[in-house]
Formats: sequence, C-alpha cells, structure tokens
Amino acid sequence: MQSRANAKKKTTKKSKPVAAEQPLPTVPELIVRKREGGRLSAREIQHLIEGFTAGTVADYQMSALAMAILLRGMDPDEIVALTLAMRDSGLVVDTSDIPAVKVDKHSTGGVGDKVSLCLAPMVAACGVAVPMVSGRGLGHTGGTLDKLEAIPGFSVSMSTEQFVAQVRDIGCALIGQTADIAPADKRLYALRDVTGTVESIPLITASILSKKLAEGIDGLVLDVKVGRGAFMKSLADARELASSLARVGGLAGKQVTAILTRMDAPLGRTIGNALETAEAFEILHGRGPADLLEITLRLGAEMLRLGGVAKTNAQARKMLEASIADGSAAAKMREIVRAQGGDPRTVDEPERLPRAAQIVDVHAPKSGWVLGIDALELGLTGVAIGAGRTRADQAVDPAVGIVIKTHVGEKAKKGEALAELHLAAGVDPDPIAQRVAAAWTFGTKKPRAKPAVLDIIRS
Amino acid sequence: MQSRANAKKKTTKKSKPVAAEQPLPTVPELIVRKREGGRLSAREIQHLIEGFTAGTVADYQMSALAMAILLRGMDPDEIVALTLAMRDSGLVVDTSDIPAVKVDKHSTGGVGDKVSLCLAPMVAACGVAVPMVSGRGLGHTGGTLDKLEAIPGFSVSMSTEQFVAQVRDIGCALIGQTADIAPADKRLYALRDVTGTVESIPLITASILSKKLAEGIDGLVLDVKVGRGAFMKSLADARELASSLARVGGLAGKQVTAILTRMDAPLGRTIGNALETAEAFEILHGRGPADLLEITLRLGAEMLRLGGVAKTNAQARKMLEASIADGSAAAKMREIVRAQGGDPRTVDEPERLPRAAQIVDVHAPKSGWVLGIDALELGLTGVAIGAGRTRADQAVDPAVGIVIKTHVGEKAKKGEALAELHLAAGVDPDPIAQRVAAAWTFGTKKPRAKPAVLDIIRS
Repeated sequence: MQSRANAKKKTTKKSKPVAAEQPLPTVPELIVRKREGGRLSAREIQHLIEGFTAGTVADYQMSALAMAILLRGMDPDEIVALTLAMRDSGLVVDTSDIPAVKVDKHSTGGVGDKVSLCLAPMVAACGVAVPMVSGRGLGHTGGTLDKLEAIPGFSVSMSTEQFVAQVRDIGCALIGQTADIAPADKRLYALRDVTGTVESIPLITASILSKKLAEGIDGLVLDVKVGRGAFMKSLADARELASSLARVGGLAGKQVTAILTRMDAPLGRTIGNALETAEAFEILHGRGPADLLEITLRLGAEMLRLGGVAKTNAQARKMLEASIADGSAAAKMREIVRAQGGDPRTVDEPERLPRAAQIVDVHAPKSGWVLGIDALELGLTGVAIGAGRTRADQAVDPAVGIVIKTHVGEKAKKGEALAELHLAAGVDPDPIAQRVAAAWTFGTKKPRAKPAVLDIIRS
Repeated sequence: MQSRANAKKKTTKKSKPVAAEQPLPTVPELIVRKREGGRLSAREIQHLIEGFTAGTVADYQMSALAMAILLRGMDPDEIVALTLAMRDSGLVVDTSDIPAVKVDKHSTGGVGDKVSLCLAPMVAACGVAVPMVSGRGLGHTGGTLDKLEAIPGFSVSMSTEQFVAQVRDIGCALIGQTADIAPADKRLYALRDVTGTVESIPLITASILSKKLAEGIDGLVLDVKVGRGAFMKSLADARELASSLARVGGLAGKQVTAILTRMDAPLGRTIGNALETAEAFEILHGRGPADLLEITLRLGAEMLRLGGVAKTNAQARKMLEASIADGSAAAKMREIVRAQGGDPRTVDEPERLPRAAQIVDVHAPKSGWVLGIDALELGLTGVAIGAGRTRADQAVDPAVGIVIKTHVGEKAKKGEALAELHLAAGVDPDPIAQRVAAAWTFGTKKPRAKPAVLDIIRS
C-alpha cells in the first residue's frame, strides 16, 4: 500500500548514477553559493533536505538558505530536485493498485472557495479517481478540511491504507495532510512563515508539488487565484507561479494544468464553513451560484481530460453537467460522507448542518450597482467572527459566516440587505455589519462582467 | 566602575524621543521589509537585537535577517543602530574615571600580525590609555591572546573592575572578550559563521565596533588588512569596510581611523605564538624587522593623535621612537606583564619563552630574488603544525611556528635556509618543509618595494 521514500530514491539513483565519491561541500558553502546566485545540484539539494529532516541541517541554516533562494531564485531543475527531495522526506503513497487515473486539484486559496466540495464528487462520478489531500484555513482564506468538518461526524483523518482503499473503492477520499507526508515541507513551511521567506516562487512551487506528488497522483489541476482576496495579488506574479508549477510538475513526470482564476470578490455567495458546505452541495443539486459552477466546470473539465475519460473540454463539461443532472454527483458525495463517518443526509438537507445563533442583515448604505466586494476584507471579517483562524492551533466555529445577498453586478437598493451575518450568540452585530458594508463599492452603471478564468497554463 | 546597558539607553532615549506608543511591526514583517530593500528604524533594530538577546527573536529569524542584510545592505544610520544595539546587549565599561584619553587598536587579522604586543606598550608609554580587548586565532590568522599566553604565567582574564583599574594605574591592559561584553554580537557571529552570512560590510562593521564601543574608548585605530593572507582579498572590498567602520564609528561619536595595510606576505619574520611575542619584544628594544616597525609606528602615530598627546604624525612618530630609545616602552611592557601575572623577564630574555623540541631548516629549492611569500599558505601551515586552530575550542602549542630567514625582496641561494620550522617532538618535518618551501616565489630581478600602507580613512 505504501513505500518508504528510500525505495523510490534507490530507483532514481540506479537510473541516474551520480559520482557518490565526490565529497559534498559544507552546508555554509552551499548557502554561500546560492547567496552568490549559483546553482545547487540535485545531489546537494537532496543532501540539504535530508539533513534538514534528520536535524543535521539546523533551522537557522535552512532559513538563511530560504532567504538566499527567495532573493536569488532557482532554475527549474533545482526546483524539481527540491520538490522530489521534500516529497521523499516522508511517505510516498503507492496508489498503483488503483486502476483509474488519479487526479487531484489544488487551490492557492481564496475567499469563499468551496470548489473542492462539489468538484471532487463530480469528477469521481465521471470515473476519475480523486485522492484529495487538503488543508485548513489560515488567515483570510478558508480551508477544505474546516468546511468538511462542518458536516456532523465527518472525519478527515485516516490511515494511508484506508485512504488508498477508499479511493480505490469509491473513487474519492477527502483527507488532511498526515504527519508522514512530506515532513520536510511541513517544517520548512512553518519556518518560512516566521522568517519572511514565504513569497518565493521556487519555494511555493516545491511546497505545493512535494505534497501532491506524495499522494500518488498521475495528474494535477491547480487553481491559481489572482487578486485582492488571493495570495497572488498581480496577474504577472500568478502567471509566474502557474508557469513554475506546470513546468516543474511536468519535469517531475506529472501532467499539470494551472488555471488562473479571478479572486477580487468572494467566490459564490457564502463565507463560513457550514454555509460554504451547503452552497457546494447546492451545486451538486443543479442550483448554486453561476460563478462557482463555472469555476467548478472549468477545473473539472481539465481533470477529466488529464484523467483520460474525456478528449475535449466540451465533452468533459457535458459529462460533468450530466453528473449533476442525473444525480450521480450528489450520490457520490453521500457515499464519501458516509465512508468518512459523516451524516450523508446533510448533502440534501442543509438544515442538518450547524446553524448560527443569530442571523442579522447588513443594509445597503445607498442605492447603486455593486461594482466590487472586497474579498480580503470579508475574509478577515470571517476570521474576526470565528469562521477562520490567525494561528494554526485555533478552533473555528462551523456555524458562523457571511452570506452575500447582493453580489457584484447586481443592483442594491438603499436599506435593503447587502449581506446576512451569521453570528454566535451574544456577539454585537453592529460593528461587524459596519465593517462588512464598507467592503461593497457602488456605481451608477452596471459593471461589465469579467471573465472568471484569466489564463490556462499546461505542463 | 561599570554601567548596565540600560543606563546608556535611557540617556539615548531622553535626548532623542521616539514615538513609543506606535506598535512595532512583527519580526517577520521587519525581515520582509529588509528583504525588499527597505530601511529599519533605530527603534526596530534595537527591538530585534533585544529580542535576539532575550530569546524572543529566534536564531532562524536572525539568520534570515542576516542573509537579507547581506544581500540588501544597510545605510550608515542602520549600521549605527545595529552597532549600538549590540553594544547595549551587555555591559558597557565605564572608564570615565580614567583621566587619559582611551584609544584602542583593532586588526581585521593577518598572518604574523603581532603588532598589538609592541604597539600597546609604546602608545601607553606616550601617555595614551590603551584598554585593549583582543581575540584568539582562528583559521590562518593568529590572535593576540594566544601570543600573550605564550608568556609564562600571563593571564588574559580579569574582572571589569580590575581591567578599568589597570588601565587607570599603568595605562594599558590586554585582555580577552568577556561573556558580558556584547553577547548579542557573540551569538550573531557564531550564527553567521554557519549560515553563510559572514561577508557583509554592515554586519562586520557592527560586530567590530559594538565590542570596541563597549570597552569605553574615545578613539579607535583600525588596521584593515588587504591581500592574500587577509580576510579582505581586494583593495576595493577593504576600502569599503574601512569607510564603513570610519563613518559608523564617527556617527557613534568616536574618532575612528582605518588604515589599510598590505597582507600578501607575512608581517615580520615569525609565525607562531612564542616566536611572534619574542619578535614584538625585539621591536621594543629597537631591533626587529623594518616592516613590523613601520606598521607599528603608523598605527601608533594615529593613536597618539586621536589620544591628543601629539598634533602631527611626525611628532607622534618621534615620541614613539623615543619610547623605544629611552626604554620606556619595554619598561611599560614589563609592567603590563607583571600586572597580569606573567614573567616580566621574558621581555628582555626571549629564551624564557616556550621553545619547540625540534628546529629544522627549510632549504631554498633554487637561487633567486624572493618575489613573494604566500601568507595564507604559511598561516594554514601554522595551523597544521599546532600554532593555530580551526575550531574555537582547540588548544594551541605556544612553542611551534615558522621563522622566515629569506623574506620578500631578499636574495635566496639554492640550498640555503628560506625558513626555520619550530616543531613539536616526533613530527616529521619533511612534508611540512616541502609545503613551506612552495610558498616562496622567485624571480631574477629584485622586486620593487611595495608600500605597507595602502590608504588611510578617517571618520
């Protein structure tokens, strides 16, 4: 079911013999070389990551190296080596006895991004296996695991054996990263977070891909979000990250498609875990907001193509639409929820999800067309009311959140509801309502609809 | 006798009020700002160094910041703030009850550099107080403390009170850095050594000056060595460091002169602790090599000018020469040695210093003019035979070393002695002799004498 990284490394070494006799430079020498803009060999990078995992390369050395990488960059071969070394720092899941092609989706994170919850069952219903390992929310962006845990009883933890068995048996499993998957990435990420070394394309690329490659996938679709509510604020930065992910994923032998999608306003109409889960289930029932459906279909079509069950995007899109229309996507979701200990009735009965103690309208301060809704500001408000967290060890309240009543491109009338706040008991809604209302911008003309997908980059 | 850093900081704060109410950015935010080439304020730098000293700023954050500083630089005001913050991380010696002006000398390190041992008593004999805190040898460069400890009984450790009392009473004390002087610098230096962040002009400047300012000096003369045997290999790099030291020292309210001196061949004719101590004492007796005397007079003249006992360099030079001629420099050295527990007879009787078990000649492989002697190579050979160390915790053998018999600009005759090896018993001299001989380069014409002093930069 699973193989230790060693097995994989042995194979790599056999096919690509290296001059193992040549002594490696010291760690400070390697840091200095990168600092001066030089290249590190695959063997040197492997040595550094192995040392970091084993504790012979100290945190303070790795953070200095991370800063040097951030400021000096890495070429694609170096990023591949870093990705594979981090993947091999832990367990690499062996999914070879699953006959279907295995494709996962990863989003760089946005506000209201509940795509995974509708996408995974739709794609699995179309015959592509989805071994999905997701994260928790941090800062203004939410996390799939928190949304799944809004379903009563749902567990995102299971053994690697159970994970592989569930993907094989029902085509999809939705879990969190286990401690034995890419531990070097986990430690490096925690270190980058506190040493000002997060914003590095090579380091982000290796972090995302090392975990995904450890899942035992054949292909990967990346939703690289761009805009005010996203990690990447500019299209140029996002395109650079997307290109790096696609190129490095390709060099690592995987089919990777990166789709750049807009994240200025929240995706869909809900922010908050139970609210978002319910909205994703709406999509499975053929309802739900158009923007969320469109992104889900675009990402899903790419997954079906990589998964080999559709030749064209048009064909893939039809299959996905059919999975909604014939109820197979909703049935798949019920199957997944049941398999992971959750209450499958929630898929059809959203009232079974946690519900906030007080629901309060936010009124429009004036009339006009909604030109924009600041996703970052609503994401941060979500954190403030308990839907998200600022530190990894904080708990979230599944019930609380924000429902958008008047979205971008719609007309607001003064005093009517812009949004609905779902709050815990005893919370004063007024300052929150004020903050939320300020996220809306109004104009006198209906804004032109902007395309949701900005670019597609394939490996 | 001494004041806690706090006292000094309070004064600084009073004279330059800061908006203490404004909250400081987080440590990662400060690292990111420097990473992006921004400026850190004095208050922010003080906050970082205080946190580093207290342990709230982790080593891995400080090493990432050091890398960002190395690659992005710091302006003079930032370096001043860093210097003062590191000075204030520990004890700042209060020398205010010493009436004489206090001037120290610091060398960036060379091979055969025993200048401090003759310079300090000469300057003190001329009426300038010399509170000298020195280091140990590491790598190919030697250290003043190791040379002093070659004197039987000599102790380089004393309390701050004893240090101040000795400088007041006899005008000079020669000690090692105590644990309570600039502990932040000590920790940062150890960190830089293993994280590839040594070669940064701002960090080197702050490291040197923070320790020196904590000694309670009024002025400082820096011997910035340039060349193959020095830390700075190029004149441009050395000039940049010298300018930074002079400028930052001046901004910190001290008179600082940086003298750039050549370090391609060893200084004087000896390498090794007892041998170098004896050679320095020769200078005090009006003997000793011309290059060593010249550097000593140049640095000493600058110290007398900063110390206010001489108006011009010519006058200062005459006073220093007189201190040799009238025996007052040698008498001062005997006084210092006696005060620090050493045998004062060694100043006049070098045979009382440790002597190696075997002394072996290195023969010239051919005849010719000596064009150069590779200082780095002889420094490394010195380490190999036990005169130096590669790790800070290693002991040195005071007796061993190398004596140059035929120096640069002198004529060698095939088979005659180029050098004398002073070795421990049982050591095979042949491979060492071969390595040493290879450090000499020969030519057919007498080389043009090169000036010892390359440039002088004053604050």
